[in-house]
Amino acid sequence: MNTKIIGIAGGSASGKTSIVKILKDELKEKAQIIYLDAYYKGFEELTLEERKKLNFDHPQSFEADRLVKDLIALKRGQAIEMPIYDYVAYERKQATTPVAPHEVILVEGLLVLYYPDLRELLDLKVYVETDSDERLIRRIRRDTIKRGRTLESVLDQYQDTVKPMHEQFIEPSKKHADIIIPTGARNQRGVGLLLNFARQLVE
Amino acid sequence: MNTKIIGIAGGSASGKTSIVKILKDELKEKAQIIYLDAYYKGFEELTLEERKKLNFDHPQSFEADRLVKDLIALKRGQAIEMPIYDYVAYERKQATTPVAPHEVILVEGLLVLYYPDLRELLDLKVYVETDSDERLIRRIRRDTIKRGRTLESVLDQYQDTVKPMHEQFIEPSKKHADIIIPTGARNQRGVGLLLNFARQLVE
Repeated sequence: MNTKIIGIAGGSASGKTSIVKILKDELKEKAQIIYLDAYYKGFEELTLEERKKLNFDHPQSFEADRLVKDLIALKRGQAIEMPIYDYVAYERKQATTPVAPHEVILVEGLLVLYYPDLRELLDLKVYVETDSDERLIRRIRRDTIKRGRTLESVLDQYQDTVKPMHEQFIEPSKKHADIIIPTGARNQRGVGLLLNFARQLVE
Repeated sequence: MNTKIIGIAGGSASGKTSIVKILKDELKEKAQIIYLDAYYKGFEELTLEERKKLNFDHPQSFEADRLVKDLIALKRGQAIEMPIYDYVAYERKQATTPVAPHEVILVEGLLVLYYPDLRELLDLKVYVETDSDERLIRRIRRDTIKRGRTLESVLDQYQDTVKPMHEQFIEPSKKHADIIIPTGARNQRGVGLLLNFARQLVE
């Protein structure tokens, strides 16, 4: 099997996940999604309160080395044990998700185009570009409605970590993209080009 | 014939022309390139010296209405007479270029994503995004070496019209793109996606 890896990066609430799901729906069992978020470090040495205050958008918050090793293994036809992050306990679970090799691996996350070792493994580098105010609106809606957080906590986190990390690490990683998809998943023609590419990978 | 139109916009010296030529090389006689620059207005009422001082990057410098009419005609299967701009005399030539309908029309130019009536005709809207300093370097090389202009005149024109028009009209038109191709024609994977799309149009 000649595994191909598509990396999909972009800011918080830019529409990355929707695009990855459209690709997965197209490729079905031939594709496997791997979320960078699954590789959040556990920081077991810290207390829960300390862990809650971590900067979750910083490159050091992810175990990128493990993701790189896992992708190399998948490319070699070996199964991996993907970590699981527990968003309630703010820690990595003991359990893992076994993942078999697939024809296409879709790697999604804020910083997928940031890490050089990870970039080298990608057969296509995609950056989803959505205006910061639209991303903020989506994030407010998502975190207050779906995740039950207060508006004030959403805005504080946005100003304290989401925005500065975006400007320092995520936005500059756009330079490494092969293509940039503006306005996220509702950009049907842009996503259509990606679908074309993905379909040809599994023909 | 179900004519499809691909629009390719981007700043001065961003790599638009190279990408359009790669697409044309792929589609061969099935495609026709139309340069927005061919539709520069003649401004015959002005003197040569006055015409030389015109702002050639401003939306009002192009006869966009005629381009739109010509594209509609081509889509209807009618031939057009494309204008020819004389860069030496800074005026429109009396002669025109007859253009027959083609399966694919490639419309290239600074402001191809700027005019709403033009955008509506496009089946794919592409913006080529290249850093401003790289574009300036290419422009200096092109205009001093190939066009025999002085360095000072290139820099003056860049500051007086190229840069302000880019920031006012061209860069904001990026929002209308279906996909953005970073770093121009040397971005082989990004251009490869475009080639895939174009090939499927003529299958």
